[in-house]
Order: sequence, then C-alpha cells, then structure tokens
Amino acid sequence: MSEKRLEPVQEEQESCDSHSSASGCTIFLGYTSNLISSGVRESIRYLAQHRMVDVIVTTAGGIEEDFIKCLAPTYLGEFSLKGKELRQQGINRIGNLLVPNDNYCKFEDWLMPILDQMVLEQKTEGTHWTPSKMIHRLGKEINNPDSVYYWAYKNDIPVFSPALTDGSLGDMIYFHSYKNPGLVLDIVEDIRRLNSKAVFAKSTGMIILGGGLVKHHIANANLMRNGADFAVFVNTGQEFDGSDSGARPDEAISWGKIRMDASPVKVYADASIVFPLLVAETFAHNADRLIKEKNSD
Amino acid sequence: MSEKRLEPVQEEQESCDSHSSASGCTIFLGYTSNLISSGVRESIRYLAQHRMVDVIVTTAGGIEEDFIKCLAPTYLGEFSLKGKELRQQGINRIGNLLVPNDNYCKFEDWLMPILDQMVLEQKTEGTHWTPSKMIHRLGKEINNPDSVYYWAYKNDIPVFSPALTDGSLGDMIYFHSYKNPGLVLDIVEDIRRLNSKAVFAKSTGMIILGGGLVKHHIANANLMRNGADFAVFVNTGQEFDGSDSGARPDEAISWGKIRMDASPVKVYADASIVFPLLVAETFAHNADRLIKEKNSD
Amino acid sequence: MSEKRLEPVQEEQESCDSHSSASGCTIFLGYTSNLISSGVRESIRYLAQHRMVDVIVTTAGGIEEDFIKCLAPTYLGEFSLKGKELRQQGINRIGNLLVPNDNYCKFEDWLMPILDQMVLEQKTEGTHWTPSKMIHRLGKEINNPDSVYYWAYKNDIPVFSPALTDGSLGDMIYFHSYKNPGLVLDIVEDIRRLNSKAVFAKSTGMIILGGGLVKHHIANANLMRNGADFAVFVNTGQEFDGSDSGARPDEAISWGKIRMDASPVKVYADASIVFPLLVAETFAHNADRLIKEKNSD
Amino acid sequence: MSEKRLEPVQEEQESCDSHSSASGCTIFLGYTSNLISSGVRESIRYLAQHRMVDVIVTTAGGIEEDFIKCLAPTYLGEFSLKGKELRQQGINRIGNLLVPNDNYCKFEDWLMPILDQMVLEQKTEGTHWTPSKMIHRLGKEINNPDSVYYWAYKNDIPVFSPALTDGSLGDMIYFHSYKNPGLVLDIVEDIRRLNSKAVFAKSTGMIILGGGLVKHHIANANLMRNGADFAVFVNTGQEFDGSDSGARPDEAISWGKIRMDASPVKVYADASIVFPLLVAETFAHNADRLIKEKNSD
Repeated sequence: MSEKRLEPVQEEQESCDSHSSASGCTIFLGYTSNLISSGVRESIRYLAQHRMVDVIVTTAGGIEEDFIKCLAPTYLGEFSLKGKELRQQGINRIGNLLVPNDNYCKFEDWLMPILDQMVLEQKTEGTHWTPSKMIHRLGKEINNPDSVYYWAYKNDIPVFSPALTDGSLGDMIYFHSYKNPGLVLDIVEDIRRLNSKAVFAKSTGMIILGGGLVKHHIANANLMRNGADFAVFVNTGQEFDGSDSGARPDEAISWGKIRMDASPVKVYADASIVFPLLVAETFAHNADRLIKEKNSD
Repeated sequence: MSEKRLEPVQEEQESCDSHSSASGCTIFLGYTSNLISSGVRESIRYLAQHRMVDVIVTTAGGIEEDFIKCLAPTYLGEFSLKGKELRQQGINRIGNLLVPNDNYCKFEDWLMPILDQMVLEQKTEGTHWTPSKMIHRLGKEINNPDSVYYWAYKNDIPVFSPALTDGSLGDMIYFHSYKNPGLVLDIVEDIRRLNSKAVFAKSTGMIILGGGLVKHHIANANLMRNGADFAVFVNTGQEFDGSDSGARPDEAISWGKIRMDASPVKVYADASIVFPLLVAETFAHNADRLIKEKNSD
Repeated sequence: MSEKRLEPVQEEQESCDSHSSASGCTIFLGYTSNLISSGVRESIRYLAQHRMVDVIVTTAGGIEEDFIKCLAPTYLGEFSLKGKELRQQGINRIGNLLVPNDNYCKFEDWLMPILDQMVLEQKTEGTHWTPSKMIHRLGKEINNPDSVYYWAYKNDIPVFSPALTDGSLGDMIYFHSYKNPGLVLDIVEDIRRLNSKAVFAKSTGMIILGGGLVKHHIANANLMRNGADFAVFVNTGQEFDGSDSGARPDEAISWGKIRMDASPVKVYADASIVFPLLVAETFAHNADRLIKEKNSD
Repeated sequence: MSEKRLEPVQEEQESCDSHSSASGCTIFLGYTSNLISSGVRESIRYLAQHRMVDVIVTTAGGIEEDFIKCLAPTYLGEFSLKGKELRQQGINRIGNLLVPNDNYCKFEDWLMPILDQMVLEQKTEGTHWTPSKMIHRLGKEINNPDSVYYWAYKNDIPVFSPALTDGSLGDMIYFHSYKNPGLVLDIVEDIRRLNSKAVFAKSTGMIILGGGLVKHHIANANLMRNGADFAVFVNTGQEFDGSDSGARPDEAISWGKIRMDASPVKVYADASIVFPLLVAETFAHNADRLIKEKNSD
C-alpha cells in the first residue's frame, strides 16, 4: 500500500522533470511550523538548497523556528512533561521538543536591529514591506546554510506567510512598535505575487504537509489557474467535521483547486515519519538529474 | 464524562460574570471557517448579538462564508459526492455542504464597490486599513441581522483575521487590484490591537473551536499577559505529530499561554456536534443574567 | 448536522415499531468494554431493562465491568495519572476512570463459587456451556437491577461474547481451572445461536458503539441474512488503514452485511458523548409506545 | 523523531537476543485481520518462518484471509468504490483491497472436508478442539510456504484467536454444523495455554499492530506475569474515548500488563506503512544472528 501511495510523487516529479525549466512545473511546498521544529527541517532545507521547489508557504512559527535553530539548539523531550514544571524552568514545549526561553531572547537580540533597519528603509526609501519581503530579508541576514530561508533567499524562492505576526515574530514586532513605530506589513501585494506564481505557471504541483492556513493558501492560489496538475497531501486530518484541513483531495477538485484529470494523493500519516522517506525516494533519488537540469536553465 | 467536560465552561462563565464589566473577563472566541459554513454559525451569531464574547479570531473563510450566506443559501449534500461532477456543475463542496459558484459571483458584486470605496478612503482620507478594520466595514455594509459580523460591528467586537487574503476575499482583492490598485492591508496594527486586548484585560478566557491559525493566534496573544485564566478547546486534533493544532492545553501552559493555576479543558469532538450544546448549557442558560449585566455597563 | 445524523435512528425505530413483535425488527446492540466502564452503562441498562434491544454483543470487559460495578464503585480520575504510581497503589486505569484492585478481588469472591457450580452442572447434568449461557447465568446470580446483564437475563436477551476469556473473567477461569479443572466453553453453539437470530428475523437493525470484535461480529451475523436493514455506527475509527473498525458502512454493503437499499449512518464521535443523546431522543422519547407494544406481545 | 520511536524495538530485540533460547525472551505478536489482507502479511510470514516470534494472537479474519490468499488472489482497488456496485458484482471490499466471493467459495471447498475430519476425530479419538489447535491443523493442511500459519505449524508457534467463529470460518462452521453437527471449540483450554506462555517465560516482549481483541488479549496474558518487559504498539487509536484500543502504554502499566521499569513505545501510524520498516531495521537486519541462535537451540 505504501508503495502505491508513493507512486504519484514519483510520477509528479518525472512529469515535472520533462519540462523542467523556468516555464515547467512549478512546485508549491507548504508545511506547518511543527515540521520546522522537528527534524523534517533538514529535508525542507535540502529541497530549498537544491532549488527543487519553487514556492514555499508556511506559518509564522515555520519561519521563526528555522532562524532560532540557527541561534541556539532545540532539545528532545517528552510529550508528557508537565507544563507547569516546564514553565517554572523557562522551557517551552512543542510536542516532544523543548525550546528554552533563552532561545527567544537570542532571537530578539538578532531581530530588533533588523526591524529598526526595515522601518528606516520604509521611511527613507519607501520600501513597501510584505511578509514575503521580510522573510527574504531575514534569510539574507541569517547568512547560515543550515537555514531553509537562507537558501530560499539565495535561490530566489518566494516564501509566503500572510499571518506572519502570529508567533514570536509578531511578539517582537509588537514590542518593537512601541520603541520604533510605523512598520507596515501589507498582505495585498503578497496575494498578488502568490496568485501570479500559480497563474503564470505552465503546470503546478502542490506538496502540502499538515493542514490549516498552509493547505488552504496553496490550494486557493491554484484555484486561480483552474487547479493544480499534481497534488500530494500528508496529514492526519479527517473529513467528518467538514474542515478544509481534513478534506480529501476530491473536495479540492470540486473547487477547481486541483484539475479534474489529476491523480491527487493523500497520505494519512505523521509527516515527520513519511516526508523524509518521500524526499529520499523522489527528489533525492533523482538529484543528479534534477540539479543538473535546474543549473543549466 | 461529558458533564465533567462541560463543567469548566460553567465555571469559566461564572467567574467571568462575577466581574462582568468592561474591565472584567475578556472572552476570546476562535473558530475555523467550516463552523461558519455549518449551522454552528447561528450559535456564534447569538454570542456576538448578545455581546457574550469580546474578541473574535477566525480565518478568511470564517469571514466571507458568513456574508455569502446573507446573499444566497448553502445547501446540504454528502461527503461522498464526486468532485469532478460537482466541478462540472459549478458547485463547491465544503464537507457535506454545497455552495454554488453563483454565490461567489453575488459576493463579488457586493464586494467590489466596497473595495473601490476602501481604496478611495485610503487615498483621500489616509485610512490605514487592517484586516480587522475591513471586517468591521463589511459588517456595517452587510446590514443583516443574520450575520455574525453585522453584530460584531454593532457591538464593537473586534474580529481578527491576519491572513484575510487567504480565501474568496483574497481572490476578489487580487482581481480588484488590477482594476483599481493600491489597497494596503496592514497586519502590524492588528497585532498591536489584538495583543492589547489580552494585555489590558483583568482576566481572559479562550474558547477555541478547531486548530491552525485561530488556535495559535488567540493563545499567542494571551502569552503577552502570561496566560489566559480560562481555556476551552474543542477539536479533533491529536498531539502525536507535534502540531499546535493537536497539542493538549498543558503544552500551552509551558509557554505561558494559559496560566499555571488554570483548569483548561480540551473536548475531543466535532465542534459542530458539541458547541451548540455548550452554548445552550452555559451562555444561553444564563442569558438573562449575562445580557442584563452587559447592558447595564 | 447532528440532527440529520440522528434521523435514521428515528426512522429505524419507527420502522421497527410498525411490526414490533417477536417477528418484527430485531435490534442488535454492540459496544466495547469502555462504554460499560463509563456512564454509558446506564443507557445500555435502560435499553435492556425495557426490552428495547434484542441481541447484545460485547467483549469480556463489557461483561465483567458491569458485574464489578455492582460489587464496588469505579472512580473518576484523569487520563494523565502516572501508570507507575497507580500500579504502586493498586489502582487500574481505564481512560479517565479508576478501578482499585480490590474490586477484582470482590469479583473473584463472587465468581469462584459460580464457576464451581458450573463445572458441577457440566459434569452431573451434561450442561454444554457457551459464553452466552455463562453470561445468562451470571446475570441471574448478580440479581441486581443496576446490572445490564441482570435485565438481559430477566428479559431473555441473549448476550454474545465469543472471546469471553479475554479479561478478568479469563483470569478467574484460568486460576479456577487449576483448582477445579474441566470447564468447557464452546463457541460453536453460540455462533449458531447468533446467526440464527439474524437469519430468522423479519428485519434487523444494528447499533454498534466502537470497533473491533463487536462491530465485526454483529455485521458478520447479518451477512447470513444478506444484510441488516438499518445500521448506526458510532466510533472514532478511520478507514485509511483498511481496518474493519474504521470502515465506512459502505464497505459493509459490499459484503452484504448491510442491505444495498439501506441508509446506514456512521457518527464520527466519542460514543460516551453521543449515545446518551441518541437514546434520549429515540428510544426514551418513544418509551411509552415502545414499552406498551413490547409488553402486549 | 521516527528514529527515536524505533530505538526501543532495537533494544527489545537485543535484550531478547542476549538470552535467546527457549528460556529467553518470549515475543508475542498480535495483529488485526486487515494486516493479513494487506501486504504486511509477507512481513509476518517472514517472522513466523524464521521463528522470530513465539506466540501469535489475531482475529478470525487474520487467520482465514491468510489461507484464502493461498487459494486465490486479493486485488488492489480503491477506498471509494461503491458498496452497492461491488455487491452486485460479487466483490467484497477490505479498505482499498478487493476479494471476490469466489475466493470464499474456494475456501469453503477446502475447509469443509477438514471440518468433517475434525468432527470425526473428536468423536472417535476424543480430540478436544480449541481455536489454537484448529489453526495448527489448518496450517498443516494448507501446506503452502506463502502461509503465515503453515510456518506457525512447522515451527510450533501457537496462534490464539478466541473468537475464531467471528468471520468466514464461523460462517463455514455454522453451515457445516447443520450437515455434520457436534463440533466443539473450547476457549478455556486456550486461555490456559496462552497465559502459561506468559507466566513461564523468562522475559516477554509484546508487538501489537492495531487494537481491539488482539491488543487486549496479549496484554491481559502478560498481566499474569506482572507485566511484559518490552512493548511496542503500532496503531492509530486515540485515548480520549477511554477505549483499550487507543490507550497509551502507560495505562497498561497501571494494570501490571507492562512492567513499571519498562520503556514501552506507541507508534501512532498505519501499521501497513510502518511495520515493514520496523521488521527490516530490526529482525531482518539482525537475521543472521537471530536465525543462527534460534537454530542452535
């Protein structure tokens, strides 16, 4: 069964290969923040580093946890550790992972001067900031090859996160706004940019790990082109409550988010188990071919 | 068991009652868009109408589907209806609900002049638009007591939706931006406003239906005040993949999103079954007292 | 939505009413042992007391926990209580319920003389014991109107539990077999009896709470009559792993376990929340009519 | 994360190795019938063939589907195939697998003479049949190295299935009982045998795929020895409804089904994805050592 589930990824990639140019198959990768907190970050970084995906959508946590990991380590803990005791020790739990408060202090020290600079550029150069532009700048500033967004910056892969204020980044922006007010983060320009990526692609593929915003945002952008040509969902959501998170790909076909003749796949599994295997057997397996072709563009 | 699960809501409400003034217990209500698509919308509308909640957080779909229901009906279908056939008939599926394409056309006809007006005000009066201000305006424009956001407008309940472009609203804004460009929707001012709601509250309660953005956004705001005093989560998410959506309330305690001495509750159930019961046995049960006290503020 | 989900039960019951005699609609009720451990036991007892169901299928725990509750109370605890600490205190956890070891000692004291008697009858009278006959005997011996199986005994409702040795009953039978060997529990006669209940019914309805053995056993019996006429499943199982527990009713139609023209329903919910509501709005709501008709048989 | 989850299996096996003799670590393997229907059957067959497990517990379907696969193939279909259409074509669906009615006819042709023979032996030789003895006989009769139970027979691995009548086997026994009545299948002798396997083991390990009967039955047997030393559960069940299927291993510690000092693991995943990987990286990885030691017993 698992082999059959994996097939379409293979197919997707090969189809994309066959016209693997700037005008070929545009791959949208979406993931929730827990995947950056977990070791799946390395698989995602690999894809960004080798330009194997073209557009990234994630949540605020999916952005900031990548940078924080460049500043201080995340630790392995247990799901059952008591919240009260952790709180008293200044340790934050993400599933079975632990992030000390001090990591967020380091993040603050790193981020605040960048926010100052952003406000300055807005005022002096008229820079119109959007979440994707801010992530691009942060990827440049981190200047660390362990970072997903460093590679997204280097390889000009746009990263969209419309609710970028929903996390530690938002906390910092909030605090900073009292010291140095005026920063504007506009989400209208970003929706134009994201939708254009879908509209002007020859064909598109969606690889979406988890649900919520990241799933809907990529699918909605592909609605603008009457549907993605390829789609792989990996999540544990169920359809019975009518949520978009748990919806089967067939619901997306009714909306025109996936083409009627596509063969979308939903893998009902924890992406932290499955995604490294998927990447290994598809993108990494064909890395020589994929990297060469991309580089010869 | 279900009775025990319900207890804390009762307690929450009564605790909130006891200092039920503008400076009393601020209740944050969050929900995903499927709940507006479903009949739970009526329970939410009831809460907004009677000022029983103080802050709302939802997704783009949670906004637009409320307005669209004022323009044309949503139909009851089946989870198993084929996406391809629905697509060919111009019908979009949300779980077991059906929304014809024509509903979105009506929405477009209604929205476009408002967007024109918003751009005009931005240019002529310098209005600094944010998602919450736009929702407030739309609530005023719809002028229909069936709408959740009509009552939010009337009762000055702020509604936050930082990724407001992630849905049909975003599609319209995208199309509109080619005809009449320039609209800016800033998410920085909204994060200030949301966080201030938590920071300056005497005590807070969180009622969160579903996961993803709405769950994290409310909890993150309450982190700014070292934790909510009361919390009720209703969702079907599981913790094993480390997602915030599936995390138990105890994880939020480690972060300071819920107070260490709180007694948070997670109900593992489809909110569309459970939430109307919860509202009936708590808010509606105590409606006389709650409404009178609110009105005598 | 929940109302729609409830409809078929209503329908089922009324259909059954219309020929509510020995030759009418035979209702098979199945449930896993946790439902007897929980307060759902009272709803089940109500159905047995008023002869509102005709055949019961459950697991060993579903039998023994009912009797044990007649001997000593079960306590409300927490899902998060540490296993090691409970073990050291002699307390067994079932979800958020606690059962002291002492309860099982009381059960042993009660059961052992009955097992002696059963062996004696087997040897002297040639009694051919089966799980259902043993449960009938235990229901007589407990002689307590709080017990589901007391009422099953009184009202001649057969209770099937082919793996009756899989629980504390099995432990007792195991210990007892060293002191007083020879007891035989035959499962062949019981499968004849269960299947005959389905084969010779005019119409049948299945109400199955949870998955595993109880779900399959009732459905398999109804295969013998080319399918049940009515079916309501309440469980949280999912289909993606191909288990029978999580299978949708439509899978049972392929097997002939449910009739092709039936309108089966699956409620995706914790039965401990949903089943008391279902009973209240159907069986209990129509109790006057149902009880009168049954009594006038 | 997945690596950490796998660790304990590694550890388990090595611990078992260290005293890998008849008096060493007794491994109980349990699985639900869908895993035999799926390709996981090959992994299970491998373990039985090489005597890498010592006791097997499964459901009736877990027995019969193995034999039926020796008589005719199972086909790959889709979860969404309509039950009514399949029924009309005489095809039974198990998740995304399809089994034609004709396979069950072949099974009947194969089984009936064996049942005749069993009745004869019971009458003439006084054979006291139990489910495990019947499975042993069937494993001998199938005489096919593709069969799990052929190897269980060859290698004297007892296979327990107390509710052996709950499936096609039960259908056949039911039909046969009208033509040639009298067969008795006793579950008391089998519980003695299963419990003894646990009680007299030096140490034990439990590997349980799925929930329901197979999970409880193995754990309950290990209660007789105050707990298993090692435990790996692979299933998708959740604890919130209080079911044994979804219970975390820590609940089993409270009962004494797992030792207080054990390090049990629950993998929240579809066993059909995970179990072949687990077997490959543990049993198969160490096959040389495991097989040699077993053979030199």
